[in-house]
Amino acid sequence: MARVSQEHLDARRRQILDGAALCFARNGFHATSMQDVLKEVDLSAGAVYRYFSGKEELIEAIVTEVLGAIRSVYERAAQESPPPMPDELIVRTLAHMARERPAVTDDGEWLFPRLMIQAWGETLRNDALSALLGEGFTKVTAAWAKVVVRYQEAGMMRDDVDPEAVARTLMATVQGFGAQYALFGGFSPEALQAGMRGVLSMREAAAGPGNQSVKSG
Amino acid sequence: MARVSQEHLDARRRQILDGAALCFARNGFHATSMQDVLKEVDLSAGAVYRYFSGKEELIEAIVTEVLGAIRSVYERAAQESPPPMPDELIVRTLAHMARERPAVTDDGEWLFPRLMIQAWGETLRNDALSALLGEGFTKVTAAWAKVVVRYQEAGMMRDDVDPEAVARTLMATVQGFGAQYALFGGFSPEALQAGMRGVLSMREAAAGPGNQSVKSG
Repeated sequence: MARVSQEHLDARRRQILDGAALCFARNGFHATSMQDVLKEVDLSAGAVYRYFSGKEELIEAIVTEVLGAIRSVYERAAQESPPPMPDELIVRTLAHMARERPAVTDDGEWLFPRLMIQAWGETLRNDALSALLGEGFTKVTAAWAKVVVRYQEAGMMRDDVDPEAVARTLMATVQGFGAQYALFGGFSPEALQAGMRGVLSMREAAAGPGNQSVKSG
Repeated sequence: MARVSQEHLDARRRQILDGAALCFARNGFHATSMQDVLKEVDLSAGAVYRYFSGKEELIEAIVTEVLGAIRSVYERAAQESPPPMPDELIVRTLAHMARERPAVTDDGEWLFPRLMIQAWGETLRNDALSALLGEGFTKVTAAWAKVVVRYQEAGMMRDDVDPEAVARTLMATVQGFGAQYALFGGFSPEALQAGMRGVLSMREAAAGPGNQSVKSG
């Protein structure tokens, strides 16, 4: 028997994960069968089951990969000095997701946000996936909280707020962007960045007449 | 035949919507049958079908009600001078949703965020619901954008960013909060407010050593 290189094995695994992610993004986990996945990746059942025992393992591998990729963005950002502002970091997260695997595009349309909503729906009724996603989310939050601590250390943010609360708030913004993108369209990473810049420029209203103006730039 | 008061009709309609919202939040739209709804509200099929022709009408009535309620929060906020800061407005939105109908609680647990995720999943595969949600979302965004314009007029925010982009960014934060609440728990409106206050206090890092500190308070 010919020896199969690790490279080949990795590429095959990659191909299966991408195909499964695409099926799940289109139709949801529940309505996707392993037959659908086999058809999408154009491989035999034997070839696919060599890597994954079924839908559950596919889902778990995809969620683990996605959360690991997001986490790496914040781990790196926490090493920078000064740490990147949230608007920049949010755009990096989205760019990273668009570039990295799973490569969830269909006719050029970016289906990752759709995959996210499908995964959330499944998480509500799947305890194993819920545990996995919860654990991964906790690690991502911890990585982003490190960046927040760096903001506070650098005097860029008031230091009397819980870094985890700030991290979860910024994560929420990214998650909500994904929801809007998948559901309504018409919202680009650039618009999100502009919106976040607006939020970051805010000041309390000055008391009385003659409010201070906020500088643009 | 006894005349039935409008009050009675309204209360009955209310009872049906709340029961349906609870069923949908628990199990999703797809897995909920009209039988489940009848059982939940403890009414006969005749009594329920007098108000709603089926699941579709129930879903649409709930989505319309929820979006209308959220919109009213921003319509009112745009009348205030100075307009409330985003952290305050976000908390008002959540408090309003917790107080208003549909009253989606189960053993004291607030299931509205769960209903939201279920609605998103259904929206991905239901064109009529997608159109309805999209239209409602556009109106909510327009209402929040009015508040953003007021920020800019009052000198509270740089005025070179698109108000709609800021409105969508802030909506995203609320939506992502809902997702985290439903999926992972451990995130309260108070923590979101604290997190948003942290974000609102941010300043770019000062160039070079001796960064300016950001005042707490």
